[in-house]
Amino acid sequence: MLEGKLHDRLEQSYEDMIKVRRYLHQHPELSFKEVQTVKYIVNFYNKLGIEVHENIGKGGVVARIKGVKPGKTIALRADFDALPIQEENDVPYKSLVPGVMHACGHDGHTATLLILAKVLNELKDELTGEYIMIHQHAEELAPGGAKPMIEDGCLQGVDAIFGTHLWAPTPTGTIQYRKGAFMAAADLFEINIQGRGGHGAQPHTTKDAVAIGAQLVTNLQHLVSRKVNPINPAVVTIGSFHSGNAFNIIADTAVLQGTVRTFDEKTRDLIEAEIERIVKGTCIAADCTYEYQFHRGYPAVVNHDFETDVVIDSAKSVNGVEHIEESEPNMIGEDFAYYLQHVKGAFFFTGAKPEHIDQAYPHHHPKFDINEKAMLIAAKTLGTAAIRYQEK
Amino acid sequence: MLEGKLHDRLEQSYEDMIKVRRYLHQHPELSFKEVQTVKYIVNFYNKLGIEVHENIGKGGVVARIKGVKPGKTIALRADFDALPIQEENDVPYKSLVPGVMHACGHDGHTATLLILAKVLNELKDELTGEYIMIHQHAEELAPGGAKPMIEDGCLQGVDAIFGTHLWAPTPTGTIQYRKGAFMAAADLFEINIQGRGGHGAQPHTTKDAVAIGAQLVTNLQHLVSRKVNPINPAVVTIGSFHSGNAFNIIADTAVLQGTVRTFDEKTRDLIEAEIERIVKGTCIAADCTYEYQFHRGYPAVVNHDFETDVVIDSAKSVNGVEHIEESEPNMIGEDFAYYLQHVKGAFFFTGAKPEHIDQAYPHHHPKFDINEKAMLIAAKTLGTAAIRYQEK
Amino acid sequence: MLEGKLHDRLEQSYEDMIKVRRYLHQHPELSFKEVQTVKYIVNFYNKLGIEVHENIGKGGVVARIKGVKPGKTIALRADFDALPIQEENDVPYKSLVPGVMHACGHDGHTATLLILAKVLNELKDELTGEYIMIHQHAEELAPGGAKPMIEDGCLQGVDAIFGTHLWAPTPTGTIQYRKGAFMAAADLFEINIQGRGGHGAQPHTTKDAVAIGAQLVTNLQHLVSRKVNPINPAVVTIGSFHSGNAFNIIADTAVLQGTVRTFDEKTRDLIEAEIERIVKGTCIAADCTYEYQFHRGYPAVVNHDFETDVVIDSAKSVNGVEHIEESEPNMIGEDFAYYLQHVKGAFFFTGAKPEHIDQAYPHHHPKFDINEKAMLIAAKTLGTAAIRYQEK
Amino acid sequence: MLEGKLHDRLEQSYEDMIKVRRYLHQHPELSFKEVQTVKYIVNFYNKLGIEVHENIGKGGVVARIKGVKPGKTIALRADFDALPIQEENDVPYKSLVPGVMHACGHDGHTATLLILAKVLNELKDELTGEYIMIHQHAEELAPGGAKPMIEDGCLQGVDAIFGTHLWAPTPTGTIQYRKGAFMAAADLFEINIQGRGGHGAQPHTTKDAVAIGAQLVTNLQHLVSRKVNPINPAVVTIGSFHSGNAFNIIADTAVLQGTVRTFDEKTRDLIEAEIERIVKGTCIAADCTYEYQFHRGYPAVVNHDFETDVVIDSAKSVNGVEHIEESEPNMIGEDFAYYLQHVKGAFFFTGAKPEHIDQAYPHHHPKFDINEKAMLIAAKTLGTAAIRYQEK
Repeated sequence: MLEGKLHDRLEQSYEDMIKVRRYLHQHPELSFKEVQTVKYIVNFYNKLGIEVHENIGKGGVVARIKGVKPGKTIALRADFDALPIQEENDVPYKSLVPGVMHACGHDGHTATLLILAKVLNELKDELTGEYIMIHQHAEELAPGGAKPMIEDGCLQGVDAIFGTHLWAPTPTGTIQYRKGAFMAAADLFEINIQGRGGHGAQPHTTKDAVAIGAQLVTNLQHLVSRKVNPINPAVVTIGSFHSGNAFNIIADTAVLQGTVRTFDEKTRDLIEAEIERIVKGTCIAADCTYEYQFHRGYPAVVNHDFETDVVIDSAKSVNGVEHIEESEPNMIGEDFAYYLQHVKGAFFFTGAKPEHIDQAYPHHHPKFDINEKAMLIAAKTLGTAAIRYQEK
Repeated sequence: MLEGKLHDRLEQSYEDMIKVRRYLHQHPELSFKEVQTVKYIVNFYNKLGIEVHENIGKGGVVARIKGVKPGKTIALRADFDALPIQEENDVPYKSLVPGVMHACGHDGHTATLLILAKVLNELKDELTGEYIMIHQHAEELAPGGAKPMIEDGCLQGVDAIFGTHLWAPTPTGTIQYRKGAFMAAADLFEINIQGRGGHGAQPHTTKDAVAIGAQLVTNLQHLVSRKVNPINPAVVTIGSFHSGNAFNIIADTAVLQGTVRTFDEKTRDLIEAEIERIVKGTCIAADCTYEYQFHRGYPAVVNHDFETDVVIDSAKSVNGVEHIEESEPNMIGEDFAYYLQHVKGAFFFTGAKPEHIDQAYPHHHPKFDINEKAMLIAAKTLGTAAIRYQEK
Repeated sequence: MLEGKLHDRLEQSYEDMIKVRRYLHQHPELSFKEVQTVKYIVNFYNKLGIEVHENIGKGGVVARIKGVKPGKTIALRADFDALPIQEENDVPYKSLVPGVMHACGHDGHTATLLILAKVLNELKDELTGEYIMIHQHAEELAPGGAKPMIEDGCLQGVDAIFGTHLWAPTPTGTIQYRKGAFMAAADLFEINIQGRGGHGAQPHTTKDAVAIGAQLVTNLQHLVSRKVNPINPAVVTIGSFHSGNAFNIIADTAVLQGTVRTFDEKTRDLIEAEIERIVKGTCIAADCTYEYQFHRGYPAVVNHDFETDVVIDSAKSVNGVEHIEESEPNMIGEDFAYYLQHVKGAFFFTGAKPEHIDQAYPHHHPKFDINEKAMLIAAKTLGTAAIRYQEK
Repeated sequence: MLEGKLHDRLEQSYEDMIKVRRYLHQHPELSFKEVQTVKYIVNFYNKLGIEVHENIGKGGVVARIKGVKPGKTIALRADFDALPIQEENDVPYKSLVPGVMHACGHDGHTATLLILAKVLNELKDELTGEYIMIHQHAEELAPGGAKPMIEDGCLQGVDAIFGTHLWAPTPTGTIQYRKGAFMAAADLFEINIQGRGGHGAQPHTTKDAVAIGAQLVTNLQHLVSRKVNPINPAVVTIGSFHSGNAFNIIADTAVLQGTVRTFDEKTRDLIEAEIERIVKGTCIAADCTYEYQFHRGYPAVVNHDFETDVVIDSAKSVNGVEHIEESEPNMIGEDFAYYLQHVKGAFFFTGAKPEHIDQAYPHHHPKFDINEKAMLIAAKTLGTAAIRYQEK
């Protein structure tokens, strides 16, 4: 049985997987600056004689394995950038780069995909179809690496894509899936209120930017509470509000910055438009002017039903997977979203909570770490899904 | 000395003054319905052979006394309407009309002016100039009696006007004056918000009139706190807010009613315009529509400096006046304001606090009463001011 | 095959089902006043010799059918009350009771369950287990009929319960299910703000209930926008706000009423507590007092996974069911919720949109009607689920 | 006539007055750092053989002139500090100190008082009473120089004090007075809101300091609009609002700073207490904590009636004074207020608008200048008031 062989060989390569992950962990690189990481990946494929292309979408790498029998083309994706965080873990494989750390598990993603590729390559005489390994740069920093890689053709001919995130808050042994909207669209907005400053004792000669900005923040609360369908999760946060330089001078301007999180484009469009409506009305009431900018970040990760079923189905047969559960929608963003706008596919969480710890350190924390066994589970699940998808 | 004679004769007529006041107190009539009161006043003048005209501005009465020597024409005004209040005083002269009461002292104003007219008439061979007694109806109910009486010519040829209000909160023996803005303009506004109703569980399909109305009330607070010059007293009150019929249905409309008080026309204009600006902006933010109506009530009573000085000067020579003090601006309205828009003049308060009482019942209270001695002080002060004004 | 026979016989009884439904439609009775309806149901069972008990929880009826083989006890529930609405349909079976109408489909629910009971009774020699027909009164009016019927023992010995709502907005031929939270908890709250009234021109002597109430409504918007987990749907609506009697008098009190909709008890508890926190803080800021009452209505309908799978599975085999789809959570309340707090079970929607109409009139509308074919689908699905549940 | 001589000699000394003023203008010193200015003043008096004391209240100077006849002791005050402003005037007497400028007219105040002292000294054989010249440091910077000078005894034995401000917005030739509250108390407050920060996508895990601060600013508007007597001018301004560091992180804290302006202690106390009440209630509603500090600045300048009448009366007899008018209350602060809390006195404005200019540059502007003729008017008015006060 092909699947059995896949699982066995992955288990046999588990030590290598750890080595790869730890090497990458020690040599993290920031988004859009992943020079050595790319070299490492390309070199890995070259050594195995696997077709590999770099500079895809400027910073990405794509490898290709053809099975002996014609079939579908399946893409598997792993991201490889790190974060501007100083690691605080005391481990042998601690980051060697000051102020830079793989604090989100992308080192694990890359190790998982490299070893899975190696095994698939070993089994290519039994494989149906074609397998595209998408090693993506710059997931952590908008506009991200997915978009330019797609524009550069990485999804050409692809029938379906699968990906996973090693997820530290979830126990190792658990796979979390969600059909439809899984991870949120994450957008940014900025509002500049232009009032008219003046002496603190003479409000009637001014247009008080502090007071107007405060009204605006208060009015914006009505958006989620009254304007958004309650069954569509949405967040409108004003993260910063800065106005005024002195206690006794009325402020001229106020600058507000915020983020919007949604799971569907209709709600996203609604909020973008309604923020402007509220800003406009508030400024008309206060007889002042404004500038409003809304920058769209990653869209929502919206999984396809059938492909998610393939993941669920595959996970059931994977040794080490004890629980398969539906995840709640997650408000965090992920540029895997772009792939799913072009081809069918599914993204899922592979539980990666370290052993002997009550609560894992959150992603992006200086003490973040994963249970490396989760990589093996991830590789098996991704690989099985890819193989089974041929038969569907 | 003319003034000495005036004062003496007024003192001699004090008993009559009390009789007139008590008769009127027992026979109060509501604003615009003062039929018997008019007859009583006209009859009073006819008996004395004084020229009198009724139906001035529909409900007012004007009497005229000419002095032997040519001089200025001075108007003195007293209002004579009562209020829809059931008297709760237990006095021999208690109102005989159920539910109607002279609870503001207009009975006293009329008695004061009638007796003063009688005495002036007795002294006419020594008087310089002409004296117009304006007995005004309907002060208590906008649009009031002053305006139509003026339109009907009651101020024709008048050089100056004086008037007083018997003022129960102020001790008897005190005269209170104020140059410039003395009593407030009192306006009315109504705002109708047209939202869109719906099921309480589905706010996103509605435009929630309760929530929009609440925002509006909150936004309107900025008007006095930020838009009005702090040295110009102003009040914007929303007296009533009604919206919605059921706990679980989102309201379609909200109706807000309020009053505005100001002392100068610039602030009044500003507030009328700024309310609309705030309503408009709030409704644009909420994507709903509105209707806004602003009805101007009586303007501010703005005394003229010179005429106020004449009152102050006159009061100093009046027996019974122990204190002459500047009043703070008073937020209550009074249609004496209209006369001052046409001719020079001054309006003042004659302290009328009843004896043996710590705190007088407020005007418009079912137990309101005055110290009748205040009428004598008022008559002397008005009469003296009228006479002295001839010499100025 | 038992299921085949069940379906066949239900189809053969379809004409009877229509007759029963139309009779009930013509004779609607209001919640807690369903005297004739109860008689009709009891009589129906008596004629067939089926064990039946009335006065369960005061107004409910329970019938019991025992299969020949021992097995599980399955309850099936139909509600039978009507609404205070004047029917506006022009149909032969139009309501004969002025101002009362089956405008929610409970007539159809009852016809469905009676005919299903008749057929199950005919098949009892082949049936495993026991079948409890719960005919519930007063679903439309809190506190509802479900609670007292349960307290009176209607669920004793029951292993699982199934129920459906004929759902006019959904096309006939579609079954809608949802695991977990399906329909919302619907609660009521009332807030009384006690300020201090006064003259509209003297706000500083008052505690302005209109202004305080408005602040409160605005502050309450923060609850859904900032305090509730965005993935947990929640609604806080203030349906009515009443304060003040005159434009120029500052209001003494404000009365606010509203509804809360949630799907989980944690969010429900949070909102109940947070409303009070916000009311309390707002009143402390305004130096006034308040009364706050929160009345819990029906809890959320939370379906059990396994039982929902049985419904899905059963529906697949039912002739006439063309689509089986997951429903979004529905913010409307339903006292079927109480049964699910005591035993396992599932509630689902049976699409009942009338033919030849673009958009069905909504439930509770004077022109509401259903496609009667939906009753047959409902009966088959409920019956199949009940039978299959024996084998699980 | 003494007054005539005073006026004549002042006119004869006008050239000296200009010299003194221009010298000081060229050598400005910042508040609490006025070393050379003190030396200059002390030297001036020493040369004339006038008794002079320095280091009064650390930085002030007091000179004393005794008239030949016993009488009252009258203090006259001039402040002498400059501002941290780079002068932009192109005049021969432009400031020689980079970044420091007499941009408020205190150079003129000092020149006025020095020359007036010289003349009074010349006339001392005809003078009644005693004259105290208070040369005060640090008026521009709270806590100011007045308070320590008083604590150091500068008002000992003083019967009355007079002072003036050369006032550029008012035409030269006009004297502006106001009985009672003339210039506002100016206070400072700071509010620190301690919320709980978190991810911008997870508001329910946070206490959003931006949203809470915004509510607070909005709630504080109710203070002036609803809580303060509308006839008592008051301003509550929040000059600065700073919260949050990133668009997608919910802010932990918000810092608000503001100023309060009032004319009476009761309103000042009320506002200090009500701000805290509103902060407290808002934070209870939001379940967060706060720190609130209210620092009292200069109290209101409250003129005494009789002494103001002496100023009015004196100004009438001064050559060059064309208009004497009542000023509106002025929201700006002035530490002359402290003297008036200890002895009777009056402070007034001496119009000092430069010639050939439509609108004077405001005080504290880099192009601020005065009409030097105003110094002569100020000296005459102050001197006359001091002399006349002896007779009252």
